[in-house]
Amino acid sequence: MLNVYLSGEIHTDWRDEIVNKCNQEGLVIKFSSPVTNHELSDNCGVQILGSEDSNFWKDNKGANINSIRTKKAIEGSDVVIVKFGEKYKQWNAAFDAGYASALNKSIIVIHSDDNQHPLKEVDAAACAVTKDQDQAVKILKYILEGTI
Amino acid sequence: MLNVYLSGEIHTDWRDEIVNKCNQEGLVIKFSSPVTNHELSDNCGVQILGSEDSNFWKDNKGANINSIRTKKAIEGSDVVIVKFGEKYKQWNAAFDAGYASALNKSIIVIHSDDNQHPLKEVDAAACAVTKDQDQAVKILKYILEGTI
Amino acid sequence: MLNVYLSGEIHTDWRDEIVNKCNQEGLVIKFSSPVTNHELSDNCGVQILGSEDSNFWKDNKGANINSIRTKKAIEGSDVVIVKFGEKYKQWNAAFDAGYASALNKSIIVIHSDDNQHPLKEVDAAACAVTKDQDQAVKILKYILEGTI
Amino acid sequence: MLNVYLSGEIHTDWRDEIVNKCNQEGLVIKFSSPVTNHELSDNCGVQILGSEDSNFWKDNKGANINSIRTKKAIEGSDVVIVKFGEKYKQWNAAFDAGYASALNKSIIVIHSDDNQHPLKEVDAAACAVTKDQDQAVKILKYILEGTI
Amino acid sequence: MLNVYLSGEIHTDWRDEIVNKCNQEGLVIKFSSPVTNHELSDNCGVQILGSEDSNFWKDNKGANINSIRTKKAIEGSDVVIVKFGEKYKQWNAAFDAGYASALNKSIIVIHSDDNQHPLKEVDAAACAVTKDQDQAVKILKYILEGTI
Amino acid sequence: MLNVYLSGEIHTDWRDEIVNKCNQEGLVIKFSSPVTNHELSDNCGVQILGSEDSNFWKDNKGANINSIRTKKAIEGSDVVIVKFGEKYKQWNAAFDAGYASALNKSIIVIHSDDNQHPLKEVDAAACAVTKDQDQAVKILKYILEGTI
Amino acid sequence: MLNVYLSGEIHTDWRDEIVNKCNQEGLVIKFSSPVTNHELSDNCGVQILGSEDSNFWKDNKGANINSIRTKKAIEGSDVVIVKFGEKYKQWNAAFDAGYASALNKSIIVIHSDDNQHPLKEVDAAACAVTKDQDQAVKILKYILEGTI
Amino acid sequence: MLNVYLSGEIHTDWRDEIVNKCNQEGLVIKFSSPVTNHELSDNCGVQILGSEDSNFWKDNKGANINSIRTKKAIEGSDVVIVKFGEKYKQWNAAFDAGYASALNKSIIVIHSDDNQHPLKEVDAAACAVTKDQDQAVKILKYILEGTI
Repeated sequence: MLNVYLSGEIHTDWRDEIVNKCNQEGLVIKFSSPVTNHELSDNCGVQILGSEDSNFWKDNKGANINSIRTKKAIEGSDVVIVKFGEKYKQWNAAFDAGYASALNKSIIVIHSDDNQHPLKEVDAAACAVTKDQDQAVKILKYILEGTI
Repeated sequence: MLNVYLSGEIHTDWRDEIVNKCNQEGLVIKFSSPVTNHELSDNCGVQILGSEDSNFWKDNKGANINSIRTKKAIEGSDVVIVKFGEKYKQWNAAFDAGYASALNKSIIVIHSDDNQHPLKEVDAAACAVTKDQDQAVKILKYILEGTI
Repeated sequence: MLNVYLSGEIHTDWRDEIVNKCNQEGLVIKFSSPVTNHELSDNCGVQILGSEDSNFWKDNKGANINSIRTKKAIEGSDVVIVKFGEKYKQWNAAFDAGYASALNKSIIVIHSDDNQHPLKEVDAAACAVTKDQDQAVKILKYILEGTI
Repeated sequence: MLNVYLSGEIHTDWRDEIVNKCNQEGLVIKFSSPVTNHELSDNCGVQILGSEDSNFWKDNKGANINSIRTKKAIEGSDVVIVKFGEKYKQWNAAFDAGYASALNKSIIVIHSDDNQHPLKEVDAAACAVTKDQDQAVKILKYILEGTI
Repeated sequence: MLNVYLSGEIHTDWRDEIVNKCNQEGLVIKFSSPVTNHELSDNCGVQILGSEDSNFWKDNKGANINSIRTKKAIEGSDVVIVKFGEKYKQWNAAFDAGYASALNKSIIVIHSDDNQHPLKEVDAAACAVTKDQDQAVKILKYILEGTI
Repeated sequence: MLNVYLSGEIHTDWRDEIVNKCNQEGLVIKFSSPVTNHELSDNCGVQILGSEDSNFWKDNKGANINSIRTKKAIEGSDVVIVKFGEKYKQWNAAFDAGYASALNKSIIVIHSDDNQHPLKEVDAAACAVTKDQDQAVKILKYILEGTI
Repeated sequence: MLNVYLSGEIHTDWRDEIVNKCNQEGLVIKFSSPVTNHELSDNCGVQILGSEDSNFWKDNKGANINSIRTKKAIEGSDVVIVKFGEKYKQWNAAFDAGYASALNKSIIVIHSDDNQHPLKEVDAAACAVTKDQDQAVKILKYILEGTI
Repeated sequence: MLNVYLSGEIHTDWRDEIVNKCNQEGLVIKFSSPVTNHELSDNCGVQILGSEDSNFWKDNKGANINSIRTKKAIEGSDVVIVKFGEKYKQWNAAFDAGYASALNKSIIVIHSDDNQHPLKEVDAAACAVTKDQDQAVKILKYILEGTI
């Protein structure tokens, strides 16, 4: 059994792709992920705790609440998969990778060749750098079952 | 005495600005930083260990060597100051922040308002978010001497 | 699944309120709490181990026995909710919050505006500061299910 | 040599009393303490980082900056002395004690008999409970020199 | 649920007494203990790994094998109960108590008044010092169920 | 219940021998092991992530992927059994033993007398040094059931 | 440079013997030890903090104060030397050994053959078991200078 | 300043080569190493603690004493350099590498191409794999001074 946290972009369905392929392979994996409702993830702080005039404190409230879920997920994981896509700054994904690295978690990074150079430090901390979800699933299958 | 690691962009002189101002204030701080010779930092791996055909392995060699310095510096620090600037992806800066956060280091982030929203998770893990080097120095002075 | 420790005042039914609301929402949470029988909590030491002439040793015996339960609960928790009410000094609640913070647990604080200033250090170590139990439950729901 | 952090009330001169007596005894101790300028300690956040409309965020900014100093001091200490006085809520003192306890630091508590019962959990986590600064100094002397 | 390691003398049936009373109370506790077959415990090393001419190496082989069980049990426990009886030196019991203390486990010590002074350091590291198994069971019940 | 990681040579069936004997004894043990398909273990990196011109990077890709499985297995184990055989350099087995030792795991080493002197440092870090799988199984049985 | 804590009996001058011989050898070692004034060590609690009617609380006060010194010394040491002599129960020495073992300190035990069997668990956790102070000094010299 | 432990073969002068070159470069490094007197390293146990009939216990005594030096050196190091040569089994070198890896130390491996495949797991855990001492020195210089 493997605990896998899926960190990174929340506006595409890459997590579903990984989860579905792993299910098809019959792999026993417990996945966790951040809240992937982008709008709610941004607004959870003020919706629950009350509005703020400044964006800084609105985001501070939201990010702190989201950190409860992220921290539990990373600390409980064996493998952290971090996907870097084409949109947004994605500093939270790199932050998660650093956090996971300091906790000595095994990291798998997914990114296209375009981002190779700026991700070199993150890649160097990883056990594998894949081009897509398919390669990541193959690694999970190999780790769990010893077959490809 | 305070150990402070200065993480982030290496193509401007923001580190000198902090170090000089702290010196002028007479603060007893031991600063550390990554190698700030950008070209050498990129090429150190192949220059020392031999050339590579692919950029991936060239960068892997370099990033791994640079990690020796970074890891020692972060682990030995009381405070990690992370500056996000206008250029480049800066995922290594966010990675350092995540690494420092997992080790329970105190983090000070420097960035302009433009990057406020995408840095919300990093900011939420920080003890202070400053607009410039001057505010960061004021914090170091206050922490060390109890005056502003 | 979430492990949540409910620290703080034991003379009101705020724990039941949280537990009941979470049950109504169908949230899968394992709650723990101190012994909430106030008189027994004060007297357990001397009742089990024999009487003492001085209040100091009576309380020392009791507090040490209660610490077995508290330590296990905090260390096994993902989230510590600490409620500060209107009565008593509540130093044990602040002590629990500090203990949880050093163990890098996610902390949710519940208090009214009246106590905002004296609780600023505790609040700064928390992921969320709520006005009542209802907000705390909303956070637990959001963390577990990604909805509000 | 001993590293001692002096936590607790900042509106009386109890720290000076301890430091002076230890100096008179010739004890080799490195003391640390929070910033004891009460007004500056409350206002440092907004003075350095800019004003806030709400007291909550004003205090949040200040408490987070002060935490840099407190965290470094507690983690670098062998002994944490926590004094509870007659004024204010002093939840930050109890929070420091909990933080120190989770890090397995030796704790000495100073308080009068009036606060004995509400401090029973803090006292139970301590190596010694003293009535005044003089007893605390005697302990430091005994620990360092083996004489009273 | 509580994990409890029963350390100390293996020539009396004090463990059965605790386990039986806890069962009668319906307490959900997972007990662990060293191998209580005294002769086999002494001889396991040479019986499995081959004979030795010197008692020192015979005992070394046995103690090292027994340490596998002890280490797993202490590290997996919430509470370590250490009983000191009338016979033998019982340094292994005190060693277990020190080991458990460094791991921040809750310790309950059982001993008669006769051994009070030489056990003062062990007692000072404990959450409770009981006169007999009955008091220890009462503590376990109180910790688990909040009743006596 | 015991978690046991079986480290070392993957070209003989020594793991099956241990697992089968433990099953015959009815021991409740959860075994883990590296991928024992030698060819696939060597080639997994390039098969999943794409070919490499140099053996160094081919092996680097493979070893990093295999480390995900190894790290999880060692960290989740109570006992690490390391077998040194007659063939190959077996530095990975010694590396696993060092890794396990630093994590304070109980180690059982299996080797013939021929390798006694060069394995002295590994043996000194172990709880038991056995000549064959049979002795190792006897230890597991004794640890779990207290009989031989 | 080596930090060495000298644990165990305080009524003979074995510490002086070790310190003097190391000085004669010119070894750079920083020794620490408990307070070796036996009477003061027993009475420090009540002398500083006030008298107690029962021996239990008298000893509790004293042992807790002495633990400040012991904990700092063991945690700051590279090597803990524990001497078991002929008199007293010496459970505190075995407790220190267990504490040091859980912190992964190197332990050297000194005892005569008479105590070999009851000390087998302590010996098994040690790097060396010596018959006298002279052998212990030889080990320290070898560790520091690589000569005997 | 850098703390560097030099692990591996003790029958050639590769350590002197590194130390001398670093001195010539003016690098501020504190080196540590095992005892490099091969015969004394093998015999230290019996020479200090008394002779043994079997080689196993002779080596056990020696390896345990040597472990005091090795453990302190690895734990106090920032960088562990491990050299694999042409002679002997060198399992202790691989053991040191595994121990260092679990402690999250930066590792530099030195070996010739001949040993590339069997060292793939050790290499994968390293920050750099060098062909000779010269490359290792260049890395130390770059890490310390940011020049090559």
